[in-house]
Amino acid sequence: MSMEFQLLARDAAARRGQIKTAHGTAETPAFMPVGTAGTVKAMLPDQVRETGAEIVLGNTYHLMLRPGAERVAKLGGLHKFMDWPGPILTDSGGFQVMSLGQLRRLDQRGVVFRSHIDGAEIALTPERSIEIQFLLDADISMVLDECTTWPVERREAEKSMRLSLGWAERSKKAFRARRGYALFGIVQGSVFDELRTESAKALVGMAFDGYAVGGLAVGEGQAEMFRTLDVTVPLLPEARPRYLMGVGRPDDILGAVARGIDMFDCVLPTRMGRTGKAFTRRGEINMRNARHAEDPRPIDESCACPACTRFSRAYVHHLFKAAEMLGPMLLTRHNLQHYQTLMRGIREAIAAGTYADFSAKTCAEIDLGDVPAL
Amino acid sequence: MSMEFQLLARDAAARRGQIKTAHGTAETPAFMPVGTAGTVKAMLPDQVRETGAEIVLGNTYHLMLRPGAERVAKLGGLHKFMDWPGPILTDSGGFQVMSLGQLRRLDQRGVVFRSHIDGAEIALTPERSIEIQFLLDADISMVLDECTTWPVERREAEKSMRLSLGWAERSKKAFRARRGYALFGIVQGSVFDELRTESAKALVGMAFDGYAVGGLAVGEGQAEMFRTLDVTVPLLPEARPRYLMGVGRPDDILGAVARGIDMFDCVLPTRMGRTGKAFTRRGEINMRNARHAEDPRPIDESCACPACTRFSRAYVHHLFKAAEMLGPMLLTRHNLQHYQTLMRGIREAIAAGTYADFSAKTCAEIDLGDVPAL
Repeated sequence: MSMEFQLLARDAAARRGQIKTAHGTAETPAFMPVGTAGTVKAMLPDQVRETGAEIVLGNTYHLMLRPGAERVAKLGGLHKFMDWPGPILTDSGGFQVMSLGQLRRLDQRGVVFRSHIDGAEIALTPERSIEIQFLLDADISMVLDECTTWPVERREAEKSMRLSLGWAERSKKAFRARRGYALFGIVQGSVFDELRTESAKALVGMAFDGYAVGGLAVGEGQAEMFRTLDVTVPLLPEARPRYLMGVGRPDDILGAVARGIDMFDCVLPTRMGRTGKAFTRRGEINMRNARHAEDPRPIDESCACPACTRFSRAYVHHLFKAAEMLGPMLLTRHNLQHYQTLMRGIREAIAAGTYADFSAKTCAEIDLGDVPAL
Repeated sequence: MSMEFQLLARDAAARRGQIKTAHGTAETPAFMPVGTAGTVKAMLPDQVRETGAEIVLGNTYHLMLRPGAERVAKLGGLHKFMDWPGPILTDSGGFQVMSLGQLRRLDQRGVVFRSHIDGAEIALTPERSIEIQFLLDADISMVLDECTTWPVERREAEKSMRLSLGWAERSKKAFRARRGYALFGIVQGSVFDELRTESAKALVGMAFDGYAVGGLAVGEGQAEMFRTLDVTVPLLPEARPRYLMGVGRPDDILGAVARGIDMFDCVLPTRMGRTGKAFTRRGEINMRNARHAEDPRPIDESCACPACTRFSRAYVHHLFKAAEMLGPMLLTRHNLQHYQTLMRGIREAIAAGTYADFSAKTCAEIDLGDVPAL
């Protein structure tokens, strides 16, 4: 009566697996493109699929405000609405309420905020968040939590983490278990080992279908993030998937996989693509830079995406200079494909037992920096 | 040593033909999507091709300013630059110089204007316009002309038309004739029959590879446009293609085809698509309208494009309300496909000798207006 998670291989702490949802299977480690408002920005669903993505993320906050969860349900659910027949994970709305909404009140009951769209006052409780995710028909739902800001005092982090534990329990009660559907708990506690430990143990005691590590990649830096994972991940059950929320750059992902993380989501490939930044095997490059203006070479020689096989750097540069929509379209496509190619490499390396080597080589190539100008 | 144009069928004055350029064949009557700055906005070239388009238009004015004709030539020409291996027609730059550039001087020699991008002062002569189009590697080049504004005094229209005739002659001298490449003259003269007649006769005397009718669809109204075509088109040689510049809505195209026009271009399907307007068999609809918010039906039941086969009106409505890039992408795709479906219907009807009937039925369906709300 839940979502199956199968572990196929291990390489030290890194894991190769499969999650089997009501809407299909996703190979792990998996990267989930972010489809905020029912669309991975600048992409048709078929194009998202072509990058290799098998599961996408939807944002409860955005969808509850517009078009509204009840409306999506009436139209057949989020899969049908956005034409993504595969697995969908939705966040709980908590993170965006705090970053985008104008917070009015936060207490044990839940949060009350003003919509950033029309200023309407809206309440979000653990029960309502789960109901919204049910209405959207998310394969994987997340408990409502409070994501503490950075930096935060220990006392504040503790209070927030305990609040989130209470919400997690209520979220679990509100969740309707069904075959192929999952509810994940979210470990909080900022960078405080004892708080992370308390949070992880309490959540494991509630027996969730999967466990997320939240409240990281908020400014603490990669070293602190990895250290926090080193403390947290070993406390999570082997048999359940682990999801590091909102992470990250390729080297963040490589390090987190080495620490036993199975799932990721991040706006970087899509958001940076829209502003002209491309991820390549040799690091990040800014396509608006004048050095690309007459460069007939592809963004990344090794990439098989349409942006790289059909267009020159000079053309992509031109599109961004001319503010043409095709620029964001092509770079979003490229960046998502770059991420999925990375994830495939990760999965293959774990299966082959060569993950440490793969990770080191990938990071070394990133450090090389862009190919020399012509 | 020019571009082949083959007439396959006639139905009254309507013509079914083929233009055979250095980069492939286009069936006529043809509608050319506008690829202003080396991209049909919001579309990948493969998607443009999937709509049924065989020839696209590029704007000399935009491309000469950015990225620059010499740069495009260095990168292998416009076909390679924008990954459109098929036929390309470029305008001469004159129209946009006058509508977008800050005009500094216009005389027999040419025009001097300030770029709308960076204010640089730039000269455009008939010879330079032809050189730019050569550098871009346009299959069909247009002579530089002055497009008179609307309304215009006869005296002014006459002076402008004569200036354009002089420029046409110089354009022809500057053009390098090659197999599969064509230069079109442009008939001017506003809505004055004698001026149109003088312009058409003089241009035909210069023996162009094709003839455009310019200076229409600038505010004179459909009746006046059709009347001007009635005067102008019969003066053009049967054996050469005829192009009505910047036209238009489906009913404009239907009426112009009935008067012997073979080629069209217009920004309406792309521009209106970006603002949420959809062309359907039952007229134009605004997808931002609240009546679509919960409508599970496709934009147009009869349309085979991805926007119509995979998404609801409710979803497209949502995308525009949320300012998601996928909205313009989907509606541009839909509108271009709608236009190409219209053109295919036109071609089939001419071949079958049923054009008058097809045109009447198509217009009658447009007049029905949108399907009733659910």
